[in-house]
Amino acid sequence: MKNAFYAQSGGVTAVINASAAGVIETARMHPKRIGKVYAGRNGIIGALTEDIIDTSRESGASIRKLMHTPGGAFGSCRYKLKFIDEDRSQYQRIIEVFAAHNIGYFFYNGGGDSADTCLKISQLSQTLNFPVQAIHIPKTVDNDLPFTDNCPGFGSVAKYIAISTKEASIDVASMAQSSTKVFILEVMGRHAGWIAAAGAMASDEETNIPIIVLFPEIPFDRKKFMREVQRKVEKYGYVSIVVSEGVRGNDGRFLSDHGLVDAFGHAQLGGVAPMIANMVKQDTGYKFHWAVADYMQRSARHIASKTDVEQAYALGKAAVTLALDGNNSVMPILVRTANKPYRWEIDTVELSKVANIEKMMPRNFISPDGFSITAACRDYLAPLIQGEDYPPYRNGLPDYVRLKNIPVKKKLEATQLP
Amino acid sequence: MKNAFYAQSGGVTAVINASAAGVIETARMHPKRIGKVYAGRNGIIGALTEDIIDTSRESGASIRKLMHTPGGAFGSCRYKLKFIDEDRSQYQRIIEVFAAHNIGYFFYNGGGDSADTCLKISQLSQTLNFPVQAIHIPKTVDNDLPFTDNCPGFGSVAKYIAISTKEASIDVASMAQSSTKVFILEVMGRHAGWIAAAGAMASDEETNIPIIVLFPEIPFDRKKFMREVQRKVEKYGYVSIVVSEGVRGNDGRFLSDHGLVDAFGHAQLGGVAPMIANMVKQDTGYKFHWAVADYMQRSARHIASKTDVEQAYALGKAAVTLALDGNNSVMPILVRTANKPYRWEIDTVELSKVANIEKMMPRNFISPDGFSITAACRDYLAPLIQGEDYPPYRNGLPDYVRLKNIPVKKKLEATQLP
Repeated sequence: MKNAFYAQSGGVTAVINASAAGVIETARMHPKRIGKVYAGRNGIIGALTEDIIDTSRESGASIRKLMHTPGGAFGSCRYKLKFIDEDRSQYQRIIEVFAAHNIGYFFYNGGGDSADTCLKISQLSQTLNFPVQAIHIPKTVDNDLPFTDNCPGFGSVAKYIAISTKEASIDVASMAQSSTKVFILEVMGRHAGWIAAAGAMASDEETNIPIIVLFPEIPFDRKKFMREVQRKVEKYGYVSIVVSEGVRGNDGRFLSDHGLVDAFGHAQLGGVAPMIANMVKQDTGYKFHWAVADYMQRSARHIASKTDVEQAYALGKAAVTLALDGNNSVMPILVRTANKPYRWEIDTVELSKVANIEKMMPRNFISPDGFSITAACRDYLAPLIQGEDYPPYRNGLPDYVRLKNIPVKKKLEATQLP
Repeated sequence: MKNAFYAQSGGVTAVINASAAGVIETARMHPKRIGKVYAGRNGIIGALTEDIIDTSRESGASIRKLMHTPGGAFGSCRYKLKFIDEDRSQYQRIIEVFAAHNIGYFFYNGGGDSADTCLKISQLSQTLNFPVQAIHIPKTVDNDLPFTDNCPGFGSVAKYIAISTKEASIDVASMAQSSTKVFILEVMGRHAGWIAAAGAMASDEETNIPIIVLFPEIPFDRKKFMREVQRKVEKYGYVSIVVSEGVRGNDGRFLSDHGLVDAFGHAQLGGVAPMIANMVKQDTGYKFHWAVADYMQRSARHIASKTDVEQAYALGKAAVTLALDGNNSVMPILVRTANKPYRWEIDTVELSKVANIEKMMPRNFISPDGFSITAACRDYLAPLIQGEDYPPYRNGLPDYVRLKNIPVKKKLEATQLP
């Protein structure tokens, strides 16, 4: 009987641990077919360095608490395996480690880059004659994986950004007559505007909040943008702007790359929100405030989407079922079968079709003027932010679990990270 | 029978509308003693311009929804009355408007500057022989009003910042081995470090999160700070930094004022978080992320402190009771009568003692090294972030009320804002 190896990869989310719970709880239900579930400490680096956590040392109650705990409970990494033709040593090392710990199932929980890593592992059976079933569990707040209806992690960020935009807009509306008229919120999304789009959900027919969204998919046009800012301030008294960190100029360069320097001449790093704020000040004179949500948005488990939590768990569970059914080199995905009410089921896609493809916002999800979302986009996003799955609280703060993360005894000589 | 005039002033909060509900609901319980409750549109500006809202046109259900709605339901303002010796015209105009609408009670809901406005109004009886009872209802996220145990609005910001710091720290901890090691969160507090202090609440004996707080009360010492950053990263693998927007250098100037310019030579406005991030990069080379909470922190009604909501309501209610008891020129305050369990009651202070005094963090609330909080500070803060008072949701978003805000018919000639 083989053991399983589970690891988390790339930027973590509010619900990646719910997928981990899905994997571990489901594997524990099949003690005659799957031995232990090991976890890589810091993703695939844990495999390369034989830094392996024994999840069987955690109680059922602790694993259950992963359902409401953000971040990566076993540590994540930004580390991409080389092509096998370039560097066999990485793969040989992984095989050594997997063989030493009798690992036959590999569950990798990540985004596009991680799907690529998982695909390479899935090919070890063929290329290096080592039998391992590799299943990829989708996760990314960027929502840019193909085939799946959405990506676990995204729904919760979308909910957080929609709520924050709504709340801050109500604040600005109160102040606008004699003070701040423009509020700018910078959100994640280096290439795809899904998270920025969620900001527009703050406004509906009832709230009627003036919002401008700046998408990475639409080249930034300062004059056109300023006309829209002025039009909205004149009509509503204020405006909220949700700007993707990945917004680009007509030259294709990130706006945030356009050469801010500090008093010492050093390059100023990051922050498209303050750049937009400066432009608004220069071109209109309106008083502004700006915020950058950064890690807060993807770790905000305190207001996670219930739909998102459920889907993250279901995909972890499905990965184990797929492995038990003999699959290799696949990824479970979400399929939307109905919109009102929202219904979904799980299907499977070949990993070779997934790796290194980014799903951008379709043009028909962005309004013709490029500053908002369409009804079709609303219909897509609405179910993903449904439901509140509150964590338990202790002393006024969410009671998140910290696992013991007891290491498995090493069996191999230590090596340098290849 | 006299009518009442209620207005909101200065930066709004997640719970200022709960104070409004306390005023309006309590006044409605005394229909034989208080006529209508009018609200100034955009604070005292509404009085000066005779832009008055008739809250009696709102249903009891709508007023109840103010309990869970952030922002200022009637609009707020940044507008300070001049001294009466400098400019009598403002006060004469207010008397005209109050007389025209038979106003005998003035409830002003704001911070230190607003207490000063309220004090001036309270003196109209004497100085201009116009009888009005002026009661100030404390409100400020900065928590810097004297006498009161804490200020409504602060507890909810503190809870939001403590939770966000905890969540983002869990995120960074997951990434630190191969990526981000330093997370920087900029919070409000131009002069007092109360909000920054709340960030340190994210860490306790169980979570043991490495956090450095930069207070406005402690001059920023770059070398000492960098030593602490390195010490924590070496020990824990990562560190979270909570920096007050009001942090200053040894020269007394705001750090954020130290001359950022963009590529066009224009001054870069605001943002101490990116400045600190740049310094960390230059001095240590650690990979970093930074966030700026800005308006999100003070409007985050979705995770308001239950204690804060209850106190905000109780102070609104107390203001009406004080007025009915014949008081003028006072402010109801919170008195802490016990810490474990936390108990509080309401007392009263003369407005003349309150105006223009700022309550800073006492030095014994800040750790000797200047980078964290003491046990005494924890004991003070802990009760203020207790309890979750979730708003109702509709379609995945909080269901905040927007009042009809029907104006009272004007009775006077329009004038320019004095």
